[in-house]
Amino acid sequence: MKSMKKIISFATDFGLEDGSVGVVKGVINRIDPELKVNDISHGIPAQDIRYASLLLMRAIQYIPQGVLLGVVDPGVGTERKAIGIETEWGVMIGPDNGLLNLACATVGGAQRAFLLENTDWIIPSEGSTFHARDIFSPFAAGYASGQLALEEFGPEVDLGDLKQYLIPLTDVSEKEIKGEVLYVDHFGNCQTNVSPEELRSLNLSIGDVVNVTVGSRSFKTTWCESFQSEYLDNVGLITDSWGMVLIFRKNGNAAEILECKDSSKVSFSI
Amino acid sequence: MKSMKKIISFATDFGLEDGSVGVVKGVINRIDPELKVNDISHGIPAQDIRYASLLLMRAIQYIPQGVLLGVVDPGVGTERKAIGIETEWGVMIGPDNGLLNLACATVGGAQRAFLLENTDWIIPSEGSTFHARDIFSPFAAGYASGQLALEEFGPEVDLGDLKQYLIPLTDVSEKEIKGEVLYVDHFGNCQTNVSPEELRSLNLSIGDVVNVTVGSRSFKTTWCESFQSEYLDNVGLITDSWGMVLIFRKNGNAAEILECKDSSKVSFSI
Amino acid sequence: MKSMKKIISFATDFGLEDGSVGVVKGVINRIDPELKVNDISHGIPAQDIRYASLLLMRAIQYIPQGVLLGVVDPGVGTERKAIGIETEWGVMIGPDNGLLNLACATVGGAQRAFLLENTDWIIPSEGSTFHARDIFSPFAAGYASGQLALEEFGPEVDLGDLKQYLIPLTDVSEKEIKGEVLYVDHFGNCQTNVSPEELRSLNLSIGDVVNVTVGSRSFKTTWCESFQSEYLDNVGLITDSWGMVLIFRKNGNAAEILECKDSSKVSFSI
Repeated sequence: MKSMKKIISFATDFGLEDGSVGVVKGVINRIDPELKVNDISHGIPAQDIRYASLLLMRAIQYIPQGVLLGVVDPGVGTERKAIGIETEWGVMIGPDNGLLNLACATVGGAQRAFLLENTDWIIPSEGSTFHARDIFSPFAAGYASGQLALEEFGPEVDLGDLKQYLIPLTDVSEKEIKGEVLYVDHFGNCQTNVSPEELRSLNLSIGDVVNVTVGSRSFKTTWCESFQSEYLDNVGLITDSWGMVLIFRKNGNAAEILECKDSSKVSFSI
Repeated sequence: MKSMKKIISFATDFGLEDGSVGVVKGVINRIDPELKVNDISHGIPAQDIRYASLLLMRAIQYIPQGVLLGVVDPGVGTERKAIGIETEWGVMIGPDNGLLNLACATVGGAQRAFLLENTDWIIPSEGSTFHARDIFSPFAAGYASGQLALEEFGPEVDLGDLKQYLIPLTDVSEKEIKGEVLYVDHFGNCQTNVSPEELRSLNLSIGDVVNVTVGSRSFKTTWCESFQSEYLDNVGLITDSWGMVLIFRKNGNAAEILECKDSSKVSFSI
Repeated sequence: MKSMKKIISFATDFGLEDGSVGVVKGVINRIDPELKVNDISHGIPAQDIRYASLLLMRAIQYIPQGVLLGVVDPGVGTERKAIGIETEWGVMIGPDNGLLNLACATVGGAQRAFLLENTDWIIPSEGSTFHARDIFSPFAAGYASGQLALEEFGPEVDLGDLKQYLIPLTDVSEKEIKGEVLYVDHFGNCQTNVSPEELRSLNLSIGDVVNVTVGSRSFKTTWCESFQSEYLDNVGLITDSWGMVLIFRKNGNAAEILECKDSSKVSFSI
């Protein structure tokens, strides 16, 4: 019976100060005290669906199959849908605003989707500003504990009607790759949407010098092996652990030096 | 036997940097490795008993019945008492400084209270600055695991002697409600101590225009249906998920705009 | 069988924003969904091995015996070793950069150490910037779950070859003790490397006035009993919960007042 229960991976933009995350986990463990919740992040920038979508896309292949509960929900209380999406990985629950679709795509795409409308699993509340507590988490806990089947969530919805967030594409020419910063990590490293294959398509290899533009700054740097490698100028390039090109500063913060943030434009050329 | 063990809900003002929270949870799992701890918040502003009391009051009805371990304790090492309070919800453990009484009241009030003086459950330490580690958590773990009965905590104390923190009351007249901001959440929404019933007593309904004063600012705004509703001026009013009137800014931070913080005075009039 | 599984205590400088901590815990629960992870801190200042070593040294005697997973790793991807160290407490896993040795010493010293080179337990990845995900956590989970023996980690290494971080020593003369601030906690209390025994060697007792120098500031203050005791001047001294002399400010932040931080020089004299 133990093995029937699924781990709930949980990500929000709620922060950890005001008790909201604890309350949602409380609701889950009221429904089943044995359920385990793995916090992915609650420090997603407020209402930043882009940041959250990319974070969940990176995480999904490493976290245990089961239930993903993702809530970044500026449209709470409006007519935006609350959905549960079935994938090969498991079930993803959250608002229908594009938050979940990159994670879905990473594990083979959505198979079916259902609205969260079964009133037996909605906690009545005077206000409608905290659906993580009143709707998303009861459905997640019901499903994870085996008390509620996906088909019982509510009406099935057409997959084509789900909101999509699209990953920004690179623009690759013979001598230059134009891309952007996908996210800045805790250390100030700037992950781009450019792949090492794309750098190699410019005939570049590790150890080579690359012309880089970030925002309005242009400089030369080096494609490095590790965070301790030598590089030209203030920052270096490295293939990061997600398989993308990352701009870093040895023992320092590249984003600060470059005044670079999420969505900053970058280009690499020879 | 599994079902005998209670979940410990845990809230402090310790922050998550210096390892204190991890150490307290370590003490709990040294006593019983199977105990589950649910973190409610460790980002309560330092030594802010008011903030913590209100946070626990909001949380208590949603978190699993069992043990509440709450530590915001500017008087650690002084003669303030360390207590365990029995309620219908379960047992609440912490310093006797008013931190727990709103949560107690929310679940029907304190039934009995005991001092934490059983030296078998106190970890000896040269200093007396970390009672969460040395006193509160061993008692919480002992009780939650079924090794220690409430009556064994120490001498029973008179409920009338417990410190009380009182929720600030509103001042309601025929044309105006005076109240205050109970707390500012992670998104900058300002929860007040005013209820929608009080607004309705001014003959106001959702969609109506309300005169609002926050601190020294006065403006007109709208009582809204959702965070995406249209409103007059810079901010709107909404009934929040705790059943109180909340001041919000669409996709923004109301507290910043209004220079509003915990305890700021507010008034609503027609 | 349950009792065979060990709790993994987990500390990093990853922060809680970008999902890295959640991903590592996901890897652990993919290997064994029953494993419990206790977060010690993920707010260690970026790349601060000193801070982390001292934090783990303080924590180790309070956290459940089993597995310590510590990752502060500026040298990730270089030739620095990845190690598992056997102690009486349990197994400590992390980079070989001095991070773990104070914790080891606190529980009686390292007994054996092994490199993390068993490729069956390394997750392949194009980049080599996230060993917490790809190397440290799979070994921790393998060992904690009983699937992987310490001897199977990789080649044994000579204990004499492990990197050491040394705790800064005090300089004690007849009338003065020179030391430093080991760390500043969440409340702005400044823990020093000076022990109450050393203060007593100057013939000082609780209640006495002490001459203190912190950085370039010199002042008189009082050796206090509790955080609420009266003291001369702006701050007081107290024996903290780790058995060291701490500089505090009643209901305030001593570090801010003194412009004091980790490694700031302090001296106490009569």
